[in-house]
Amino acid sequence: MKRYEQLADEIALMIRTGVLKAGEKVPSVRTASRTFVVSPSTVFQAYYLLEDRGLIQARPRSGYFVRELATRALSEPAIGPRQADSTEVDVSELVFSVLGSLKDPNTVPFGSAFPSPDLYPLQRLARSMARTVRDMPPQAVIADMTAGNPDLRRQIALRYMISGVHLAMDELVITNGALEALNLCLQSVTQPGDLVAIESPAFYATLQVLERLKLKAVEIPVHPREGVDLNTLADRLQRLPIKACWFMSSLQNPLGASLPAAAKEALYGLLRQHQVPLIEDDVYSELHYGPQPQQPVKRLDRDGLVMHCGSFSKSLAPGYRVGWVAAGQFAQTISRLKLMTTISPSVPAQAAIADYLQHGGYDRHLRKLRHNLEMQQSAMLASAARHFPEATRVTRPDGGYFLWFEFPRQVDSLQLFQLALAQGISIAPGPIFSATRGFAHCARLNHGHPWDKRSEDAMAMLGRIVDSF
Amino acid sequence: MKRYEQLADEIALMIRTGVLKAGEKVPSVRTASRTFVVSPSTVFQAYYLLEDRGLIQARPRSGYFVRELATRALSEPAIGPRQADSTEVDVSELVFSVLGSLKDPNTVPFGSAFPSPDLYPLQRLARSMARTVRDMPPQAVIADMTAGNPDLRRQIALRYMISGVHLAMDELVITNGALEALNLCLQSVTQPGDLVAIESPAFYATLQVLERLKLKAVEIPVHPREGVDLNTLADRLQRLPIKACWFMSSLQNPLGASLPAAAKEALYGLLRQHQVPLIEDDVYSELHYGPQPQQPVKRLDRDGLVMHCGSFSKSLAPGYRVGWVAAGQFAQTISRLKLMTTISPSVPAQAAIADYLQHGGYDRHLRKLRHNLEMQQSAMLASAARHFPEATRVTRPDGGYFLWFEFPRQVDSLQLFQLALAQGISIAPGPIFSATRGFAHCARLNHGHPWDKRSEDAMAMLGRIVDSF
Repeated sequence: MKRYEQLADEIALMIRTGVLKAGEKVPSVRTASRTFVVSPSTVFQAYYLLEDRGLIQARPRSGYFVRELATRALSEPAIGPRQADSTEVDVSELVFSVLGSLKDPNTVPFGSAFPSPDLYPLQRLARSMARTVRDMPPQAVIADMTAGNPDLRRQIALRYMISGVHLAMDELVITNGALEALNLCLQSVTQPGDLVAIESPAFYATLQVLERLKLKAVEIPVHPREGVDLNTLADRLQRLPIKACWFMSSLQNPLGASLPAAAKEALYGLLRQHQVPLIEDDVYSELHYGPQPQQPVKRLDRDGLVMHCGSFSKSLAPGYRVGWVAAGQFAQTISRLKLMTTISPSVPAQAAIADYLQHGGYDRHLRKLRHNLEMQQSAMLASAARHFPEATRVTRPDGGYFLWFEFPRQVDSLQLFQLALAQGISIAPGPIFSATRGFAHCARLNHGHPWDKRSEDAMAMLGRIVDSF
Repeated sequence: MKRYEQLADEIALMIRTGVLKAGEKVPSVRTASRTFVVSPSTVFQAYYLLEDRGLIQARPRSGYFVRELATRALSEPAIGPRQADSTEVDVSELVFSVLGSLKDPNTVPFGSAFPSPDLYPLQRLARSMARTVRDMPPQAVIADMTAGNPDLRRQIALRYMISGVHLAMDELVITNGALEALNLCLQSVTQPGDLVAIESPAFYATLQVLERLKLKAVEIPVHPREGVDLNTLADRLQRLPIKACWFMSSLQNPLGASLPAAAKEALYGLLRQHQVPLIEDDVYSELHYGPQPQQPVKRLDRDGLVMHCGSFSKSLAPGYRVGWVAAGQFAQTISRLKLMTTISPSVPAQAAIADYLQHGGYDRHLRKLRHNLEMQQSAMLASAARHFPEATRVTRPDGGYFLWFEFPRQVDSLQLFQLALAQGISIAPGPIFSATRGFAHCARLNHGHPWDKRSEDAMAMLGRIVDSF
């Protein structure tokens, strides 16, 4: 990353966290140059970039100011209430009925789990694919099934190393997307009837997988910015025979919360103390807006207790279905489970991604992707401030492509979902994110698609429906 | 298929089934032309083809004779003994230790589960892949995940239709190879502790999957030519609360047996009577040597009781990991299980195969593939007759790329496996095909690789090791 980009990211973080407030003047070029010990031209470049990102704007003869859009207009949701000790999970039907309704391509996809495929370098990937399948030695289509594509394994291990996580290569198991990795992780450490600690609200697939495997959920509330509540977790680990934790420690879905570094250390301490493995679902880690990625709990993992799951589906290659897990002491078990269920992800898909990682300009693509998602987040936040009731609360994650809205209490989000769908707009209603069907007045909205008049009109329509409750 | 090819196939079947014996004269061109109501030139073409397939040879001024190689030299194994009612499965460790030893590419791969990748049109597939990923609309990478590639679904349904099986399109679920389909089928109709009827000997992955899902095996003996023993099955269905049958009704792995058409009808009758679903593993169906493919039990399925699993891994595209199940009344359950575990097979792999099926010349490739496998089978059978003790028994399947050898009683095939491996030769020892570790003097040998001096030397070496017991 260039110095001016770093500087821009630092200032963006100051805006995001409220150090610089809406309408406030950004430090002059001279001041910034002195403060950050960079040349004035670096400051200029950083300010141009921030202007381009929609975070600051120039006023004639007055310098740069923080834009209204760039700061919070609606307030932040509170942390959820404490949950019952453990819950049988029975939410799958509801999730499928919601997901089934998303299939119509004419629907405004606020309820979708996927960002727009137009944000991904599919043509460049296609060239990598064409080249690698043409040049692949026939033996590789067999050999790469059991062991995984060796170049891909090296590239993944390299990215871990660069981000400060040291892995033994044989910890890595390449999977059919992160969801297969998560399933296998859970199967490697649980039996039907066991208790698993999950977040509340949680990614709905987590709930479905628990239900399928007949596991019981111990729901731990998530703070909208600081992640899973460690006090509750400590209490539950003390009192209950929890067999595994399944957490998204960074950019949690649906809240976008990330555990601060110190909390990650505290979490790892708890896990070690109780010798409970962590399934760390980190599929959004590359979508951070801030200057640096969040470090995973995996970085602290001396005991091989953490199974760190990642994927290219959100960062590079949707539909290619290539993910992985760095599985610590559970790697062999998971690798064997995979050989008994799907054997391997598609060999050509692995090879294409390996080639792209080596030659395609992944980091350049990621910067562009993050920038687009951040712009779209600003647009959705601004639109929500215009159209939703003032009492609405909303998260403002430092990455990803989801916002979590907490509407006034009387709003029934399952009804909202139905009414919106009748108007050609999908949303992801709160209850699909909870084993206890909580969050009845909440919804997750996807801003992973380029913002346009249709998006704006859909937000206005949603606002009118919300008002009608 | 051209008329002369049909005729050649009919005569090959007569040789295979012993109607025409080794050294016997093949009907003269005039007789054949009259008998089969074809022109003499069609007979000539058919005979040239059979000569090319190594089944007949010309003797100067005497006409064509059946080659020695082309008929049985070693005798056929007997059907296995009756098994205990049901067995806890605990074979996975053994299977993995055998499979792990196959990784060395310098080993002669008689123990492998895969045929040589050189037998597949990988370059032509690569062109289909390059074209489809280049032209794929970005929306498809998302849409094809949940629903499957629509062209691929149509092509698969079309092939069913041509072979006389009528499917509702929505019965089809595209999966990560057949193994995922089989796993999901089993999960859709069983709970841990349930009984499942399987074949004995069985494909070892069947045993591993049962073990993983904590299901109990009811082993039904398989006749080496006529398939699973229906009398035993009828008895077990009567007496035991069997929740599903998992059978390979055609070209069973490892024996290569196929249930005759009447037995398939009897099997379906039993299933209907007891309302027990059949998981029909039919991954070798395209590898028949005879004139016509075996019809699956699925063809008889009026009640949606049969989950028919197929794959392109053995017939077209190893490593692409694309299979499917035509799942009858269980289709929705299976589709949902898939969305909760792997979501989808790789979208580019699906598109490439769909394009190949439309434009690549699949049937031409299949004819070549079958021809190669049949030639290699003849070569291995002839080599076995030269090098193995006379008391050895061997199957002679009408398709596929496995032979099942029953050595003299004193041969311990796990020891044989170790001794052969030390000489750079792998085999698949009998006990990995049985929940009860039976078949201790048997082994499966793969003839899916082009036959050469190395293969011949390996057979000679195996023969010496067998003799040493």
